[in-house]
Amino acid sequence: MEMPQPDARALAAKDDLVRRLTEALGPDGVISAPEELIAYECDALTAYRCPPMAVALPRTTEEVAETVRICASFGVPIVPRGAGTSLAGGSLPTADSVILGVARMNQALDVDYPNRVIRVQAGMTNLAVTGAVQGEGFFYAPDPSSQLACAIAGNIAMNSGGAHCLKYGVTTNNLMGVKMVTAEGEIVEVGGAHLDPAGYDLLGLICGSEGQLGIVTEATLRILASPEGARPVLMGFSSSEIAGACVADIIKSGVIPVAIEFMDRPCIHATEAHAKAGYPLDVEALLIVEVEGSDAEIETQLATIKAVAERHSPMVMRESTSEAESKAIWLGRKAAFGAMGQLGDYICLDGTVPVATLPEVLRRTAELAEQYGLEVANVFHAGDGNLHPLIIFNANAPGELEKAEALGADLLRLCVDVGGCLTGEHGVGVEKRDLMLHQYRAPDLEQQMAVKDVFDPGWMLNPAKVFPLSMSEGRRHAEH
Amino acid sequence: MEMPQPDARALAAKDDLVRRLTEALGPDGVISAPEELIAYECDALTAYRCPPMAVALPRTTEEVAETVRICASFGVPIVPRGAGTSLAGGSLPTADSVILGVARMNQALDVDYPNRVIRVQAGMTNLAVTGAVQGEGFFYAPDPSSQLACAIAGNIAMNSGGAHCLKYGVTTNNLMGVKMVTAEGEIVEVGGAHLDPAGYDLLGLICGSEGQLGIVTEATLRILASPEGARPVLMGFSSSEIAGACVADIIKSGVIPVAIEFMDRPCIHATEAHAKAGYPLDVEALLIVEVEGSDAEIETQLATIKAVAERHSPMVMRESTSEAESKAIWLGRKAAFGAMGQLGDYICLDGTVPVATLPEVLRRTAELAEQYGLEVANVFHAGDGNLHPLIIFNANAPGELEKAEALGADLLRLCVDVGGCLTGEHGVGVEKRDLMLHQYRAPDLEQQMAVKDVFDPGWMLNPAKVFPLSMSEGRRHAEH
Repeated sequence: MEMPQPDARALAAKDDLVRRLTEALGPDGVISAPEELIAYECDALTAYRCPPMAVALPRTTEEVAETVRICASFGVPIVPRGAGTSLAGGSLPTADSVILGVARMNQALDVDYPNRVIRVQAGMTNLAVTGAVQGEGFFYAPDPSSQLACAIAGNIAMNSGGAHCLKYGVTTNNLMGVKMVTAEGEIVEVGGAHLDPAGYDLLGLICGSEGQLGIVTEATLRILASPEGARPVLMGFSSSEIAGACVADIIKSGVIPVAIEFMDRPCIHATEAHAKAGYPLDVEALLIVEVEGSDAEIETQLATIKAVAERHSPMVMRESTSEAESKAIWLGRKAAFGAMGQLGDYICLDGTVPVATLPEVLRRTAELAEQYGLEVANVFHAGDGNLHPLIIFNANAPGELEKAEALGADLLRLCVDVGGCLTGEHGVGVEKRDLMLHQYRAPDLEQQMAVKDVFDPGWMLNPAKVFPLSMSEGRRHAEH
Repeated sequence: MEMPQPDARALAAKDDLVRRLTEALGPDGVISAPEELIAYECDALTAYRCPPMAVALPRTTEEVAETVRICASFGVPIVPRGAGTSLAGGSLPTADSVILGVARMNQALDVDYPNRVIRVQAGMTNLAVTGAVQGEGFFYAPDPSSQLACAIAGNIAMNSGGAHCLKYGVTTNNLMGVKMVTAEGEIVEVGGAHLDPAGYDLLGLICGSEGQLGIVTEATLRILASPEGARPVLMGFSSSEIAGACVADIIKSGVIPVAIEFMDRPCIHATEAHAKAGYPLDVEALLIVEVEGSDAEIETQLATIKAVAERHSPMVMRESTSEAESKAIWLGRKAAFGAMGQLGDYICLDGTVPVATLPEVLRRTAELAEQYGLEVANVFHAGDGNLHPLIIFNANAPGELEKAEALGADLLRLCVDVGGCLTGEHGVGVEKRDLMLHQYRAPDLEQQMAVKDVFDPGWMLNPAKVFPLSMSEGRRHAEH
C-alpha cells in the first residue's frame, strides 16, 4: 500500500523532538527506541506496517495539548491511537509521524446516575465503562466485538457499533459531549449532558471523523439502566438468502429486537468447534435474535418474532431456556472472529446495506467468492444491515493477499451499488480510502476535505487516512 | 431587533430579478407585489416582521437550483422557508432577500416498507408523512406540536422534536438522507437508506443547521411500525419541584416511556377550560406519562413507573381506561399552547437542561418570574429535559415586550448555567443569536462560522440567523 513519503526535514529533527517531548511527558511518557516502536507499527489491520518516528503517551488533557503543540512546532504530524484495535488501519503510523496514544488516560472521572451520564477519559476501554456503572444497574450500550480491548477514543473516531446497536444505536447516539485538543493544541469542549446543542452539530461531525478533526481526551457518555432480563432465540435456515429475507421481515414487523446476528455455515462450524455454543450444524444460516425486558415483554416480542420467522420455514427454532444457555450462545458469537482465525488468514470487511437487500447481497457475495476461488464466511449485525464478510486466504501463498483485497473491494462496491455504503462501524482508515471515489464524486470529497481544512488547516492529524492520497496530497503539511 | 441593512445595489436590481425568476418559475411561482408579500413578512415569532424583496415558490429540485443560481447572479441572499412555523424567527426575511418557499413541494415520492424508509419532498407536512404510511401500520416518529402545519424542511433545519421523542429521538435520529441544493445552485445527495455513511457525518451537520448550509428539497426518513397500543397515566403533584424530581427518578429507573409531558397550574387551568381533557384542577403540576406496546408490556412498564411515582406522594394518579380518555388527554396537551393564548400574549421559550436539574430549574424559574412581575407557565417535554417556559405579557402595554424578552434571556442563561443549552428543538434563529455568546466563547463560534464558510462562502443562505450580527457582519455578502 502506497503511503506518503517522510518529510526529510522532519526526520532530521527527530532527536530534538524526542528531547522536547521527554521534557514535557517524562522519560516514561515517550518511546523512541526502534525495538520498542515495533509494538506501534500496526493496528489490527496487520497487513500494513510502518514504525512511527516516536510514540507519546500523555497522562492528562494538558499533556495531550502540550504534545500537539510540540509536534506542530516541528511540523510533525500526529497519529492518534486508542487501543490500536482498528480493522481499517485507522491508527497506522506514517514514518514521519508521532503516535499519540491515550491508553494511559483510562479513568472514569464522574458518574451522574440521575442524569444517566458518565464522564470518562478517552483511553478507557469500552467494557470498563460498563464495569464502572454495572454495580448500580447501568450499562454503556455500544458493544464492539473488541470491547474488552478497544478504547472509547477509537469508538468515537470510528463511530463504533456492535451487536446490541440495533436497539440502542451506535456511538453517535450515545455520545453527549467531548473534551478535545485541536490541531493548534487548544483545549475545547463540545456538547455536554443535555439534548441537542445550539448552533451546528459539531459533536456529530467529530464523532466518526477518524481522529482527523481533533484529539478527543474525555467523553461524556449516555448510560442506560440494565434491562430486567434478556432472551435469545436461535433460528436455523436452509439458505443464507432465506435467513436474510427473515431478517428483513422481522424488521418490517416493527419489533425492534436488541440484536439480530447472522452466521453462515463456515462460520457456524468454525465457531462451534471452538466455543461449543450448542449451535445447530445442519443449517446453512443461523440467526441469533435477542429481545429484552420483563418476562411478559420478552414473551410478547418473541411471539411476534417467531410468527414472522415461521413464514420462512426455519429448520431450527430454539429459545434459550436458561441463563447459562443464553451466555453460551453469546460467547459463541463473540468468539466467532477468533474461531475463524483457525481457518486461515482473513480480511474482515465492514459494509452496510439497506436491510431488504440482504438476500440479494448474500447471493451475490457467494457468486463473487466463487469467481475469485476464495472462501467468504459471513458473521454480522443483520438487523442493521451491517455486513462483515470474512475473506479467508493464505498469506504465505504469493498473490493471495492481493486477490483477497480485490475481492474485498468488489464486495464493498456491491454494498454501495445496492444503495448502501463502505463502512458501518470500522471506518475508512487506510483500508478503504481509495474506494471512497466509488461512493462519492470528487466534488463531494473536496467538500469533506474543506471541512477538515477548517479544523486542521495543516493536515497534521491522522495523515493518509479517509481520503484518496491522490486527492489529499496537495494539502498535507501545507504551510499555514 | 437590529437587522442587517439592505444592500442598495441588490434592491435596485429587484425588477430584473423578479423578471428572471418569473421566466424560470412561471408567473404563479413568484410573488413580488407588496400587498402579497405581507403573508411572508414573519413566521410564528410574530414580534419581528420584515417583508422580503420577493418570494419564489419552486415546484421541483431543479427549479430550486435555478432559483438559487438566479439569486446568486444578482448577489441576493435567500431565506429558505418550510411552512413558516418557526418560533425562533428561523425564516424571518431580510429586506434585501428572496424567500424560497418549498411549500408546493409536498409529495411523498416513494415508500419502501421492507427497509422502513419513505422519500418525500421537503415541503410535505410532518403529519402528512405519517398519513402516507399509516394505512400499512407505520408512522413517522418526531411529532412537533405544530405537526399539522410544519414542513419536513423546517423539521430538518431545526432538528425538531416533539412529545414522543423521548423514546424515538429527534429529527436527526430519524433522518437517513437528503437531496440538497448548495449555495452554488448545485444538486447533491447526502446519506441514504443505510446506516452510518463513510467519511465525515455531513448529514448530521446539515440537520439542525437552520437552512444555512444548503436548501433541502427531498428527505429520506425512517418510518416505524405503529405500536400495538399505548396508555397514558396522569399524575398530579403538590409542587413543580416534586413533579420534576419524579421525572428524574422515572428516567433513572431505566424505563423509557414514549413521553413524559409536564404542565404547571396556570397551564392546566387554561388548557382544561379550553379543551375539557379531564385534568385535575387541584394540583400544582401534572405529568402525562405514556408507555407503548402490547397490553403485557404496558402493564409491566406502568408498574415500574407507578412504583417510582408513589415515592413522591402524588395527589392524583389516574391511568387512562379507554381510547377515548387517552385521546382526550393528548388533545388537551396538544391544545395547551393555543389555550395559553387566551391568557394574553406570550413568548414560548425553548431550552434544554440535564433532567436531574429540573427541580432546581423550575424553582429558579418561578423566582425569576416573580422578580420581573410576569407570569410564566410551564408545559414541556420533561423526559428530555426540554423546557418550554411561556412568558405571558401584554403586548399593548409599553415596555412589556422588552421586559418579557429580558426575562426570557435570563431563563435561557439559567439553562446554560446548570449545564444545559439554549435550544432543544426550536433552533437559534434570530431570537437567540445574541445569547450564543453566553453558551459559546467567540473562538467556538468562529469555528462554527468557518464551517459555514465551506458550504456558503458568500453567506447567502438564511442571513442574520444563528450567529450574533456583530460576529457575522464582515462575512455577509462577501465577494467570492
